[in-house]
Amino acid sequence: MHFASDNTSGVAVEILDALARANGGSMPSYGADPLTARLNPVFSELFEHAVEVVPVATGTAANALALAQVTPPWGAVLCHEDAHVNADECGAPEVFNPGSKLIGLPGADGRVGAATLEAALGRFHPGAVHEVQPAALSLSQTTEAGTLYAPDAIAALSAIAHARGLKVHMDGARFANAVAALGVPPADVTWRAGVDVLSFGATKNGAMMAEAVIFFDPALAARFDFRRKRAGHVISKARFLAAQLLAYVEDGLWLRLAGNANAMAARLAAGLTLEGITLIHPVEANEVFAALPAPLAAHLRGTGATFYDWPMPDGGAGAARFVTSFATAAEDVDAFLAAVKAGLAAAPEDAAHGR
Amino acid sequence: MHFASDNTSGVAVEILDALARANGGSMPSYGADPLTARLNPVFSELFEHAVEVVPVATGTAANALALAQVTPPWGAVLCHEDAHVNADECGAPEVFNPGSKLIGLPGADGRVGAATLEAALGRFHPGAVHEVQPAALSLSQTTEAGTLYAPDAIAALSAIAHARGLKVHMDGARFANAVAALGVPPADVTWRAGVDVLSFGATKNGAMMAEAVIFFDPALAARFDFRRKRAGHVISKARFLAAQLLAYVEDGLWLRLAGNANAMAARLAAGLTLEGITLIHPVEANEVFAALPAPLAAHLRGTGATFYDWPMPDGGAGAARFVTSFATAAEDVDAFLAAVKAGLAAAPEDAAHGR
Amino acid sequence: MHFASDNTSGVAVEILDALARANGGSMPSYGADPLTARLNPVFSELFEHAVEVVPVATGTAANALALAQVTPPWGAVLCHEDAHVNADECGAPEVFNPGSKLIGLPGADGRVGAATLEAALGRFHPGAVHEVQPAALSLSQTTEAGTLYAPDAIAALSAIAHARGLKVHMDGARFANAVAALGVPPADVTWRAGVDVLSFGATKNGAMMAEAVIFFDPALAARFDFRRKRAGHVISKARFLAAQLLAYVEDGLWLRLAGNANAMAARLAAGLTLEGITLIHPVEANEVFAALPAPLAAHLRGTGATFYDWPMPDGGAGAARFVTSFATAAEDVDAFLAAVKAGLAAAPEDAAHGR
Amino acid sequence: MHFASDNTSGVAVEILDALARANGGSMPSYGADPLTARLNPVFSELFEHAVEVVPVATGTAANALALAQVTPPWGAVLCHEDAHVNADECGAPEVFNPGSKLIGLPGADGRVGAATLEAALGRFHPGAVHEVQPAALSLSQTTEAGTLYAPDAIAALSAIAHARGLKVHMDGARFANAVAALGVPPADVTWRAGVDVLSFGATKNGAMMAEAVIFFDPALAARFDFRRKRAGHVISKARFLAAQLLAYVEDGLWLRLAGNANAMAARLAAGLTLEGITLIHPVEANEVFAALPAPLAAHLRGTGATFYDWPMPDGGAGAARFVTSFATAAEDVDAFLAAVKAGLAAAPEDAAHGR
Repeated sequence: MHFASDNTSGVAVEILDALARANGGSMPSYGADPLTARLNPVFSELFEHAVEVVPVATGTAANALALAQVTPPWGAVLCHEDAHVNADECGAPEVFNPGSKLIGLPGADGRVGAATLEAALGRFHPGAVHEVQPAALSLSQTTEAGTLYAPDAIAALSAIAHARGLKVHMDGARFANAVAALGVPPADVTWRAGVDVLSFGATKNGAMMAEAVIFFDPALAARFDFRRKRAGHVISKARFLAAQLLAYVEDGLWLRLAGNANAMAARLAAGLTLEGITLIHPVEANEVFAALPAPLAAHLRGTGATFYDWPMPDGGAGAARFVTSFATAAEDVDAFLAAVKAGLAAAPEDAAHGR
Repeated sequence: MHFASDNTSGVAVEILDALARANGGSMPSYGADPLTARLNPVFSELFEHAVEVVPVATGTAANALALAQVTPPWGAVLCHEDAHVNADECGAPEVFNPGSKLIGLPGADGRVGAATLEAALGRFHPGAVHEVQPAALSLSQTTEAGTLYAPDAIAALSAIAHARGLKVHMDGARFANAVAALGVPPADVTWRAGVDVLSFGATKNGAMMAEAVIFFDPALAARFDFRRKRAGHVISKARFLAAQLLAYVEDGLWLRLAGNANAMAARLAAGLTLEGITLIHPVEANEVFAALPAPLAAHLRGTGATFYDWPMPDGGAGAARFVTSFATAAEDVDAFLAAVKAGLAAAPEDAAHGR
Repeated sequence: MHFASDNTSGVAVEILDALARANGGSMPSYGADPLTARLNPVFSELFEHAVEVVPVATGTAANALALAQVTPPWGAVLCHEDAHVNADECGAPEVFNPGSKLIGLPGADGRVGAATLEAALGRFHPGAVHEVQPAALSLSQTTEAGTLYAPDAIAALSAIAHARGLKVHMDGARFANAVAALGVPPADVTWRAGVDVLSFGATKNGAMMAEAVIFFDPALAARFDFRRKRAGHVISKARFLAAQLLAYVEDGLWLRLAGNANAMAARLAAGLTLEGITLIHPVEANEVFAALPAPLAAHLRGTGATFYDWPMPDGGAGAARFVTSFATAAEDVDAFLAAVKAGLAAAPEDAAHGR
Repeated sequence: MHFASDNTSGVAVEILDALARANGGSMPSYGADPLTARLNPVFSELFEHAVEVVPVATGTAANALALAQVTPPWGAVLCHEDAHVNADECGAPEVFNPGSKLIGLPGADGRVGAATLEAALGRFHPGAVHEVQPAALSLSQTTEAGTLYAPDAIAALSAIAHARGLKVHMDGARFANAVAALGVPPADVTWRAGVDVLSFGATKNGAMMAEAVIFFDPALAARFDFRRKRAGHVISKARFLAAQLLAYVEDGLWLRLAGNANAMAARLAAGLTLEGITLIHPVEANEVFAALPAPLAAHLRGTGATFYDWPMPDGGAGAARFVTSFATAAEDVDAFLAAVKAGLAAAPEDAAHGR
């Protein structure tokens, strides 16, 4: 009954096996190995487009380095106000691009709307030296509210951004969950919809520690390796990053893993709804946000369940976040739902109404 | 016959096994897991001192973050001019502490001498606002020339540094090789000799990707976690960093692995000397630097051997670096020495004298 | 009829004279001169408190350096969303403290309210490594909307900030206008109300180029000079900064100059109101914000008047900002008001209603 | 008898007058004023080349911003090891371009030699991600040893730098002294000799606080204004920077002022030589470096003379630096020389030989 985060799960067995297989003999370090050499062709095929793949060990590194690459030092990155890059990375994007600014935009269910983006861009004075200049749009797919951008929504936002000269970045820490849920080729929610650079996450969905920055225009990647190196994000035994990423996408493993996580979230959401619990965001991938009365939350924690308290959409207390993963079993969900039912039965009014 | 670097080797089987063992079930992320919880006690016992252990994935991260932690933004870090932090990290220390400066000092065989350090410190004007102010001394153990600092040499340098208010950092990317070679407790070359913070390397000596910043004064570590996070160096599935580090030091594995690397370097050095090849630095750990005539180098590469060209001590061309690792076998060394002998036999004068 | 900004005016004659007087003979540079030596005692008397005064040439430098001094690299500065530090300094605070973040708060008439501040602080998770940590509150006095904080409002906000360990910074680019308008000793709106560090502006109110960072706790100023130097903000012929600041505050010049600016703004506001023009913020110092129909704005510019278009409080177009200065004459205001009357007479409905 | 620095002098009367003249009426701020508008044409004529002139208040700002403009974040700036940018700006270049590195090169009399530059460049591995990449050469004219680069020496160094893709920056804090001493058009020691960007100093030679970054290729200046703004180096009442710079170069004032400084240095050097004092660098502009026995130095300071102790070329103590300025009078020099003679007469052996 562990729903605190998908990163509390371990490593998919296929990926652990790949690490063991990668361990044979000597290989050149710093990315000159044969496994790393396969990344570009394998991901180019996956994305139906020539891509440049740069592996790193953390999602924060992927995001912060990618944004620094496409933003001048006096640039602004527009994103949802709750975006991980703005709210959960302790200023990493600003560390790697000092003087740049993240501009958080409001938006229901974690999504930036086209009108909001237009209005925000309209408030800038192009060329006015007193202001940072808008340089990038960063979209999270899935969003921090566990929701998705449909391909045409991404395309609309990208068109607005590109018209003003901005680059479009996608924070895909849970990209697999989005692609699995949408059931579209990964190209449809990236370069075909105007995305210039993607933080492709793997860790939350079964890798040990492996993410990749994927440039859809290789020219955009120029000298990116210097940026990565001086941030301390070049892994010397690079084969072990590449091995994770290759195993992750080969044979569709990534989508199978994400599919399980999504299915478990749907099961959890359905069960909670049945018990009269209110969901505060649509459940579209592997996260469930629900209004959860404090007594019920306490009861559930007493049974060993783990999850995070979360603010309600109005900022007040009273909700919880549940994240399912590749490793979540239907039994886990069902046991948790049973605990919910038991908690509600014990003190129905208190629990359901938070008294 | 791969001597390009110790990081071209894979992972020690004990560490790979530990990763697999760590994979069971759900564990809290971001370092709240039970494996990470064991780091402080295990390393405190190893170092015979209460230490604060902060794992990261790369040596550059360990060095740059540790130096940023002990240096104000207007501070200078004194180090050997060839030190990795100064010459091989693409400015990472300055990225994480913008405005700070690394001051490279000369010194034979990769070592900073006490008189050189005194003289360098004497050139600063304490409190003069036009100059960065000396804040840290960084020593590499082993050095970039594969040599060692004896405990009393470290103590002498630390005393000079501390007398001026500097903190002492040790870049221990090959710390195991140094400890194994010196045959002293790790405390003797760290806190007992005045070292305040250590970059404890494991990757080059058999880990997959695992290093640790070790603070000998826990007060020095205050808020270091924020520094690590905003650099993108907090690994979410932290158990897999901890598992590597624990397996590495348990049962003395780290010293056994380093012992092999050191023995293989000694074997290689002895063999080269026997063939009349000149060593350009004392061989004290797992690196051999030798004058290598270009024809011989070409011959050796023709047999499949890998190693780096290296400058002679005067900066000119003509030498090579050979690094042995935990995985180097005596057969590898012997095969290489046979290739040397064959190369010299084919064209003795050309090869030996570089004509 | 120049109301674009108070910085379009020149230099008060008393200050120009002081620059000429400071020109005699040789004086030590970099602040070791006798004029600079008088800054601390003169300002300590002015503020009825021992202060540390550090002169710089621009307000952006004063703000950015002051905030960097009181904020760790992973710190957040809370301020009004329209504050100069957040909206008009092109990321300077983030340049001098890379990785820190400015958090803009909403608030009517340019003021941050106590409840808003409390709520914003309540959203942080103290010690959570994923988030920047609140470190400073920056208040603008006068605000970007030309309004004032009363002493008790400052004290209330400071108390909230101090209770959470934040330092309080005041951006006093128009501090003189505030003090002149409030008619209180400068101490009452600074240290007595909890302000820890003040950007004391002089340029907008009659100096040539001179501002000062004033620390009310000299311990807070430790090593600030290094911060200033490495930013290129140490003026070598420091006597000419000090001469401006001394002439500015001696004999109450600063308040006389500000008093004129404030009176002219009041005259302008009264005249506009008489003509039926709507003021969109209270006029409390030397800035007038008014709804201005586009035809009338065009008419006024046709007569040579200068002023900036400004957004309405809801973010839409349709307003203008008028700033008066120490040099604004009643004749300027009256001529402008006559032009307004003429413009309205020419096309009363169009002009007044913006058709 | 004030020889501590040329910046201990005040302001040339012509420049003070220009500031007073610039004070009339309202002018647009932030550089949109008519005086600033004259900078580009006036300096383009002076340099016989279309230039882009960006005024700032300090030489450190000019240098640090110029270098940041022409160097990527992973770039190295090669300069003399004693260069002001490397030794006297407290890391400002690294503040404005975090992660970049200054590489100090040795060289007699403050000059970088062509062979030294070639050798230093040869030690880099182009494209190797572990190293910062050479991006700019910074030459000081005059040098920190008071010497000059002849036009052909600059051209030779620039050719080497350009062949490797580096830009050439000149730190001209004492550019006027160099041009006056060499008797060549300013073009000859700048763009005609390959200089891409110049820090054009005026403060040390009679301005109050005014320097300019001069780009010889306007394309190089793209977006430089953002860089200047976010560093807090945009002066709002810009007319007063422009007025200084215009008065400084009009009618050859700058060269007349520098000519006096140079002549006084020559007079001082000749007098010292006559007294048997050893000059430790050639005297080519307005600085005299001399071996000065401690007893004589003490005697001179006892008479009220001011000057800095300076290291001997070998780094040891025992020398002094004397700087003359636009305001130095022959009487000052002669009085000082008389004091030297008296000091030597009082204790000839001690004084002359430093016993």
